[in-house]
Amino acid sequence: MNSILLHNVLLNGIPSDILVSEGRFSRIAGAGKISPESAAEVLDATGKAIIPALYNTHNHAAMTLMRGFADDMVLQKWLSDYVWPFEDKLTPADIHKGSEIAVEEMISSGSVFFSDMYFDIEQTIDVVEKRGMRAAIGITVMENHSLAVEAEKLDFIEHWSDPTGGRIQLVMAPHSVYTVGPEKLRRTAEYARNRGMRIHTHISETALEVQNCLKETGMTPVRYLDSLGFLGPDVIAAHCVHVDEEEWDILAERGVTVSHCPASNMKISSGRFPYELAIKSGCRITLGTDGASSNNNLDLREGMKLAALLAKCVSAGPDRSLSNIGNPELLPAEEVFRWATRNGAEAFGIDGGEIAEGRVADALLIDLSDVRMRPCHNLISNFVYSADSRCIAATICDGKIITDLCR
Amino acid sequence: MNSILLHNVLLNGIPSDILVSEGRFSRIAGAGKISPESAAEVLDATGKAIIPALYNTHNHAAMTLMRGFADDMVLQKWLSDYVWPFEDKLTPADIHKGSEIAVEEMISSGSVFFSDMYFDIEQTIDVVEKRGMRAAIGITVMENHSLAVEAEKLDFIEHWSDPTGGRIQLVMAPHSVYTVGPEKLRRTAEYARNRGMRIHTHISETALEVQNCLKETGMTPVRYLDSLGFLGPDVIAAHCVHVDEEEWDILAERGVTVSHCPASNMKISSGRFPYELAIKSGCRITLGTDGASSNNNLDLREGMKLAALLAKCVSAGPDRSLSNIGNPELLPAEEVFRWATRNGAEAFGIDGGEIAEGRVADALLIDLSDVRMRPCHNLISNFVYSADSRCIAATICDGKIITDLCR
Repeated sequence: MNSILLHNVLLNGIPSDILVSEGRFSRIAGAGKISPESAAEVLDATGKAIIPALYNTHNHAAMTLMRGFADDMVLQKWLSDYVWPFEDKLTPADIHKGSEIAVEEMISSGSVFFSDMYFDIEQTIDVVEKRGMRAAIGITVMENHSLAVEAEKLDFIEHWSDPTGGRIQLVMAPHSVYTVGPEKLRRTAEYARNRGMRIHTHISETALEVQNCLKETGMTPVRYLDSLGFLGPDVIAAHCVHVDEEEWDILAERGVTVSHCPASNMKISSGRFPYELAIKSGCRITLGTDGASSNNNLDLREGMKLAALLAKCVSAGPDRSLSNIGNPELLPAEEVFRWATRNGAEAFGIDGGEIAEGRVADALLIDLSDVRMRPCHNLISNFVYSADSRCIAATICDGKIITDLCR
Repeated sequence: MNSILLHNVLLNGIPSDILVSEGRFSRIAGAGKISPESAAEVLDATGKAIIPALYNTHNHAAMTLMRGFADDMVLQKWLSDYVWPFEDKLTPADIHKGSEIAVEEMISSGSVFFSDMYFDIEQTIDVVEKRGMRAAIGITVMENHSLAVEAEKLDFIEHWSDPTGGRIQLVMAPHSVYTVGPEKLRRTAEYARNRGMRIHTHISETALEVQNCLKETGMTPVRYLDSLGFLGPDVIAAHCVHVDEEEWDILAERGVTVSHCPASNMKISSGRFPYELAIKSGCRITLGTDGASSNNNLDLREGMKLAALLAKCVSAGPDRSLSNIGNPELLPAEEVFRWATRNGAEAFGIDGGEIAEGRVADALLIDLSDVRMRPCHNLISNFVYSADSRCIAATICDGKIITDLCR
């Protein structure tokens, strides 16, 4: 029997026993209330708290290979002189290596899932399968990229079945409005919907993208995509930095999920995410790291802190007579934690994001003895604002501990 | 003999042997070029890189006790309803405990020094002495605070001598223009200068502070302090968020050191630090964490990343026709690293901040095998943008390893 008993773990401040079997939380009771015999393995979790694990909704995992390769420069130079020439030389073995680094980094920093958009996806799938985490692997669609060979990919999709029995899903990933024409955008969405696949894309990451889209189509990216029938509850849109109030309403109405990537947006000066509009719209907001070459890590906990701080910094303050101050009440720790956990899980149809009987057993054990978790007036605040990966004693995905407990 | 040989450590990419004796780097040579017999202890540092350690120039260390105690609220409510009532109940033993947590956290995240401003300083001094790090301990001066008892403190200063033989200095810390009147500000600066003590204060942290100062004195805080003869090369001014171009020139001319505290400014919505003006002025800029209750950690490496990202996010972009984008070239990794290392050391007269023969031996050993440091196209970029405290294999202060290597 595949089962583990987490003994004496703190759940919402209460010492608890949690039985995990067949990948789910099968029983939760007070500490000492579940017999050790009911599980194949017992883990003494004294001094640890259990919280939901993180779901990273926008990544280009293998770009870890370009971590620190080109920083602190304008986007066009970064892409033309560094990223694209580097990518032109990548082999499948390189992608495997880059994916390994990415997956290790994500697991050790508390993510159990990532939504990816890159090339040579067989390599990334192989790593995810072996290391036990979850992923939504994007089939990248672009008009002109040496690595995006459409016919072969469609063939791949037709013959693919998830080797992990539920941890990996394929999604269609038309890259953006500026790299995919209207006909291909429409056909890709249709193709995905016919097969029940989700759709992962970039929307309004930069002001230039919006300017050019306006010039070419007479519409902003959100309105343009909506006019193509592209938007829907199966769409996960990364960035959405340059989105106006009416567009937020369109995204919310269509049920689009937004993946906010604070580190990347800040580092390459894409613009300031409109937190107030986004939150007011009621859109489902999730968090992504983006690729490590524009972040430069894949630590979604750090992403939570960045988002919560940036929201308070760039928002309009409650006292509008004082300029250049923000609203410290915007995006509290609990809310950004929900973005990174339950919202991310829901967007990809994963029944996680909560420690409750019947839910899939994706979770983190937090080491309350770590100095950054002390004192512990508020566990979620400490995790969002104070912790780092050192505080994560174990990452549990699909009912299995996938970190090395002895690290 | 108090000496250690760091064998085969990477220094600027070159495998090196580094002999540390009597608290300084006494000899640096190629790996294998220094005889193991020349040191009392040999540390095999294969796979580690050596870089300068971090100097945290603004802290209220014992406020770790309030970590996560009150988040996501406006400043006045935070202070009146939470911080001040909490502080009223603090005992010297509490301050000792809070300082212990702070010091452990700083050492494990790479800081060898902090400039502190709090109460019951004997407690903090005791912790710093025992744990082997450096500190500039502020004698807090305020007009009305139950814990700031002036006469006793002056007596303390007269009878104090550094028990560590050089790691601890006392500084005068008149809190701010809104908590200390002009006469006391003037006398405190004079007192400090007569004794060669540095002066640590808050300047222009919030827009409200500037508004009130204007109302009461007809001047902004920088101009007001300058009119009192307060500013000089011995002053370390925390925050300086609401400082205009002319004021930056005043600060630069007087040789004032600024302690920028990005996390705290963002979290309590103090305002957006004017990176472009600050950098253009030529002022010496350093980094601080501020207290853990408004951050909520004391990790200056995280502070470097926050500053570098925020600068790129809130600055004016190179293409001014595109609004709401910043300048990705502003505050590159190397520059913010200098803020956190050499600039901080220099501001407090510490001959550190560089790995060179003759300098004091304050340094970090970075574990290059950590997944967040891989690949390593650029060590400083990786440390600033990708690392977390897990990547720090050892913190060396005053020639001694003060972290537990086996952690």
